[in-house]
Amino acid sequence: MEPKLLLTPGPTPIPPQVTHAMSAGMIGHRSSDFTSLMENVQSSIRPLFGTDHPVAILTSSGTSALETSMVNLVEPEEAVLIIVSGAFGDRFRSIAKSYPYEVHIYEVPWGEGLDIEDFKDFLASKQNIKAVFSQACETSTAVVHPINALGKLVKDYSEETLFVVDGVSAVGGMKFDMKADAIDCLVTGSQKALMLPPGLAFVAMNNTARKRASNNKLPRFYLDINKYFDALEDHSTPFTPAVSLIQGLDQVLSLYNEEGIEKVFDRHLAMRNMLRAGLKALDLELLVEDAYASPTVTAFKSDENELSHIKDALKNKHGITIAGGQKHLKGRILRIGHMGYMFPKDMLTVLAALEAILSKHRNKQYYGKALAAAQEAYYE
Amino acid sequence: MEPKLLLTPGPTPIPPQVTHAMSAGMIGHRSSDFTSLMENVQSSIRPLFGTDHPVAILTSSGTSALETSMVNLVEPEEAVLIIVSGAFGDRFRSIAKSYPYEVHIYEVPWGEGLDIEDFKDFLASKQNIKAVFSQACETSTAVVHPINALGKLVKDYSEETLFVVDGVSAVGGMKFDMKADAIDCLVTGSQKALMLPPGLAFVAMNNTARKRASNNKLPRFYLDINKYFDALEDHSTPFTPAVSLIQGLDQVLSLYNEEGIEKVFDRHLAMRNMLRAGLKALDLELLVEDAYASPTVTAFKSDENELSHIKDALKNKHGITIAGGQKHLKGRILRIGHMGYMFPKDMLTVLAALEAILSKHRNKQYYGKALAAAQEAYYE
Repeated sequence: MEPKLLLTPGPTPIPPQVTHAMSAGMIGHRSSDFTSLMENVQSSIRPLFGTDHPVAILTSSGTSALETSMVNLVEPEEAVLIIVSGAFGDRFRSIAKSYPYEVHIYEVPWGEGLDIEDFKDFLASKQNIKAVFSQACETSTAVVHPINALGKLVKDYSEETLFVVDGVSAVGGMKFDMKADAIDCLVTGSQKALMLPPGLAFVAMNNTARKRASNNKLPRFYLDINKYFDALEDHSTPFTPAVSLIQGLDQVLSLYNEEGIEKVFDRHLAMRNMLRAGLKALDLELLVEDAYASPTVTAFKSDENELSHIKDALKNKHGITIAGGQKHLKGRILRIGHMGYMFPKDMLTVLAALEAILSKHRNKQYYGKALAAAQEAYYE
Repeated sequence: MEPKLLLTPGPTPIPPQVTHAMSAGMIGHRSSDFTSLMENVQSSIRPLFGTDHPVAILTSSGTSALETSMVNLVEPEEAVLIIVSGAFGDRFRSIAKSYPYEVHIYEVPWGEGLDIEDFKDFLASKQNIKAVFSQACETSTAVVHPINALGKLVKDYSEETLFVVDGVSAVGGMKFDMKADAIDCLVTGSQKALMLPPGLAFVAMNNTARKRASNNKLPRFYLDINKYFDALEDHSTPFTPAVSLIQGLDQVLSLYNEEGIEKVFDRHLAMRNMLRAGLKALDLELLVEDAYASPTVTAFKSDENELSHIKDALKNKHGITIAGGQKHLKGRILRIGHMGYMFPKDMLTVLAALEAILSKHRNKQYYGKALAAAQEAYYE
């Protein structure tokens, strides 16, 4: 009878109010009902991106938002610099390699934070970089990058160089300020902190990026962002949008405003701190140092057998789903998502389950230890 | 208290069983639960496309399926022939013009059927056409094209020339047989006869098309269909899919099998016949001749004032939404959708409302006339 707990870094649980909104019944996407919906959504979503500029909404996966940012902002034969620190940096690389771009990669060891001085030297050594691409939070490693410092570096390198940030697993779970952080384009998907099923992609651009996009000659149609911004002027979309997901999005944004956006961000930080304290108390090594730890996802290490046992026992005995590592972190880490419709009590629930699993598996008494550490992290 | 009736040619009403399935709660898209779902879906969806080949599922609008069919099957500098008979043929044209293709357009007056002999001469006059693109049903005009005859013509022209069919507003509402109709690629979206919210696009390809796609060098990433077919081998998707819509799709396919696919197609034909008989009885001129009339959408003409009055009165007094014309048919026609979760009784409902509206508007007695004609069309 007990509901299962989905603590993966996407898809994430859907609030019942949002499920309800998505079940309201179909409306025509050229109707005045839909236009009002889009108008509401547009005014409430911008603060999550930290911008006054319009946020385009595409019907597609987050990956298409990454591609959209690239194919609209970079012309054929131009040079891009991509920070690759995990599976999603890798995806930026794969996208770039699919197009006739000059691709420069700045590699960061998976799980480590970015060394800003080293990156500065690397950037300075490259000529004519038109755009720098980075994750805000690399979902596959649970690392956050120093976006504000990176933005400044990019603009010091050249005012003409765009700074493009993948906000998947970050937007909605941590604060952004596109202007202060010198972000020209910020993208995300619906299925992470935004508490929706997958199927919507979001692209926010400042005027500099918009201008670059409108002049870009690279062949594209569905991912031509100009079409979406043009349609937004009439609170519309260029192609039939995922109506039910947008009905849900409107409700999501109401929930944000009800709790207060700043309080939502604080809740994410609190969950991170609880989890990190609790995992340490369980003698589990955290993959990421405190300074780079994400407010939305936490990764911990152990040997492959123990990780496999933990993941299975959580699922089968406790009804809790968490995620494994991706690519070369497969079998080396587990990841707990703590974004969107997740709360401090859920962190206590997963830590309590881990206490039980590890007490038995290691024949060592952990009862109360992780919970105490998490309570202290939350209340002190 | 009375529920509203959405009779537009997309989005269409969602069956309550499907809404329920879409509310089941989020599952991870790399979980075994999702893999089973995809396996189920794959085995049930192929008959709707009339194929034994895999049907790729993209998270995106129907337009992206049109683009996907083109950018995967046609190389830069190659020649395409597009049949343009309405707004969606126009969309194929716009997509083609966005890429470095040699574009030939065969225009059919909007609302008219395609003259197969004339088309044959046109095709014969063009050199090296690599692919011919056509709608099965042009949603904007309610015309169906003679797909079987077109397919034969294309293959007579050259075995190397692919025949690509836009099945939006047709797949799920009328019978296809990709082999018998010589269709190499058939695409559609989720929000028409498939009774789902918008957000999924479907691409079926035979081996000839698959081979062409795998050799195609045109730069693309999200719309690279090879990635989707590769992932399907593991019952998976290359990027995070619209999980809730796929949960709904599984239920849709159960409903098809429950009613029986052939019976669903018969129901669509019956609704068309009822509506056409009823509209004629109301002295409303049908846009399309019987021979080309779509089983999923019906368009009728009148003067602009009367059309505007009908549309408003249906919505405001009867809670029934139908659609206007698009582009240069705007103000010249109205369109009634009759696909997916729509039934003969809904045709009676809209005809009864039209009887009432026109009896008053024209000061002429229509009561029972359209209903009688529709009943006869259904039962005789």
